[in-house]
Amino acid sequence: MFKRVAIVGATGAVGEEFEAVLRNRKFAASDYVLLASARSAGKSVHWIDRERTIRELGPDSFAGCDLAFFSAGGSISKQFAPLAVKAGAVVVDNSSAFRMDENVPLVVPEVNPEAIRTHKGIIANPNCSTIILNVALWPLHRVNRAVRVVVSTYQAASGAGAKALAELESQTRAVLAGHAAKPEVFPVPCAFNVFSHNSAVGPDGYNVEETKMILETRKIFGDARIAIAPTCMRVPVKRAHTESVSIEFEKAMSPAEARAILEKSPGVKIVDEPSANRFPTPLEASGKDDVLVGRIRADQSISGGRGLQFICTGDQLLKGAALNAVQIAELLR
Amino acid sequence: MFKRVAIVGATGAVGEEFEAVLRNRKFAASDYVLLASARSAGKSVHWIDRERTIRELGPDSFAGCDLAFFSAGGSISKQFAPLAVKAGAVVVDNSSAFRMDENVPLVVPEVNPEAIRTHKGIIANPNCSTIILNVALWPLHRVNRAVRVVVSTYQAASGAGAKALAELESQTRAVLAGHAAKPEVFPVPCAFNVFSHNSAVGPDGYNVEETKMILETRKIFGDARIAIAPTCMRVPVKRAHTESVSIEFEKAMSPAEARAILEKSPGVKIVDEPSANRFPTPLEASGKDDVLVGRIRADQSISGGRGLQFICTGDQLLKGAALNAVQIAELLR
Repeated sequence: MFKRVAIVGATGAVGEEFEAVLRNRKFAASDYVLLASARSAGKSVHWIDRERTIRELGPDSFAGCDLAFFSAGGSISKQFAPLAVKAGAVVVDNSSAFRMDENVPLVVPEVNPEAIRTHKGIIANPNCSTIILNVALWPLHRVNRAVRVVVSTYQAASGAGAKALAELESQTRAVLAGHAAKPEVFPVPCAFNVFSHNSAVGPDGYNVEETKMILETRKIFGDARIAIAPTCMRVPVKRAHTESVSIEFEKAMSPAEARAILEKSPGVKIVDEPSANRFPTPLEASGKDDVLVGRIRADQSISGGRGLQFICTGDQLLKGAALNAVQIAELLR
Repeated sequence: MFKRVAIVGATGAVGEEFEAVLRNRKFAASDYVLLASARSAGKSVHWIDRERTIRELGPDSFAGCDLAFFSAGGSISKQFAPLAVKAGAVVVDNSSAFRMDENVPLVVPEVNPEAIRTHKGIIANPNCSTIILNVALWPLHRVNRAVRVVVSTYQAASGAGAKALAELESQTRAVLAGHAAKPEVFPVPCAFNVFSHNSAVGPDGYNVEETKMILETRKIFGDARIAIAPTCMRVPVKRAHTESVSIEFEKAMSPAEARAILEKSPGVKIVDEPSANRFPTPLEASGKDDVLVGRIRADQSISGGRGLQFICTGDQLLKGAALNAVQIAELLR
């Protein structure tokens, strides 16, 4: 039982998901302190069992806290997570601030729960696309090493925050009424459109989201050699990220073998009915804890039966963010 | 100059595109005969320069025709294309009926224009996703053989016809009004959703659309060995298909070299401004003749500089259908 749990970014899109996840899982905490920017301070929100007042995040916010969930962006985490640790809390950080810090474990509980033992106060929650890929890929990788993975994503608007989701809805209304889409949050229209992920593109041509998938997967799997070729794209979907995955394994793996492994894997649900054309969709994955996996088939472009393809879909606000963070905290008890 | 050009399926989604393409390109034809099912017969439509009456397709429809564009599905093509040939017409067939027939050339004019010389009356127009991939891939493949291609598609609703496009719009309105999406044309809701392509899935796990991409590309490239691993998906986009492509070449190819080749390639337009996050989108490709290519970058997961990734987008009703067919006919003159 945690005594006092701080929620940093309680009013954001992921903050709201935290409330639902903590409530649904009957998370063992005696008290919560809800923290946000000055703009939200003083507001009252229903949290778990009663109304609570949002307080302004400050250096003294963490007195008496033994756990803190951070979900308010990298700069807030960098500034305040060390203060929370100093006050005696373990920090589970949802931002990218500490993910690649070698002193900070980066954890997907279904993959590397043992890594949390090495924490020095901060545990990092991986990027949403990375978590969804890793939950589906790890059970196969652990029995037959994945040498190379090509992955293309179909990422939901809400992955860019509540304003992005609102933009998708308002733009879609405008287009249906015959007006032009006016992009404000995203660099291009998102209604009825597909576009390269809205993160900065580096000199190597990969955007930040893609680089996260490469580097974070290597750290979580403890496999510095796994080769990943990602393409991250946004689609006009409200919630849940979909990924098209092609894997080259070290040894042969049949679709039946992969399916049997994935059926027994925690956090995975198989949705794979070819005769009915029923496969994972973001609509079905929305609000669900599991990563849906389907279209499991041999990749005929790879010799020796070493190729496998599938699609997977997961709720990026739940398993891709709040749920994974709460699962990490549950490992701490 | 063609004397009399038959349009089979004049009232369908692709039929309307034919009218615009023929008009815009000032296609050299003295007369047109517009053919459709009994349901549409008698209707009047504006075609090129004047109103014309739709006639019911029948065995005697092709008298005096020296060219016929077929775009009314595979069974109509199988039944009537041989009759059109017998009447003296060259058939450019947009269906899948004859594509893999070894006596029928399968042509993308930017790739294998010489193949039309072998025709025996019928020339097949490839699948839309195949054409878009081939226009972007061929200029690279011809100078440095692509050994293996992994491609994931983001295909527009209108690729499944006018009713599918209408379903996307009506479902989207319903969802925005708080109602449930009722799928009728597609097997699952298409509004704010992503789903595996709505074609039948074979025993090998590939759907028909994916199998087309594999087999048709091999035939068009004249390369029976090129290995292709496709995943075909639908996205809530009205028009134009997007593809995420990862290529393993025989020899090294830098992004700068690929870009220089593609800049000079017919039918290709580079849209690749990383600093502005401006890359190809289906919205920009809609109504355009060119296939847009961008996000050209090294695939770091392949050794020796032999890996390249890009995204490409093309209007599947234009270059993916009507435009490619008209370009084939232009080669016949």
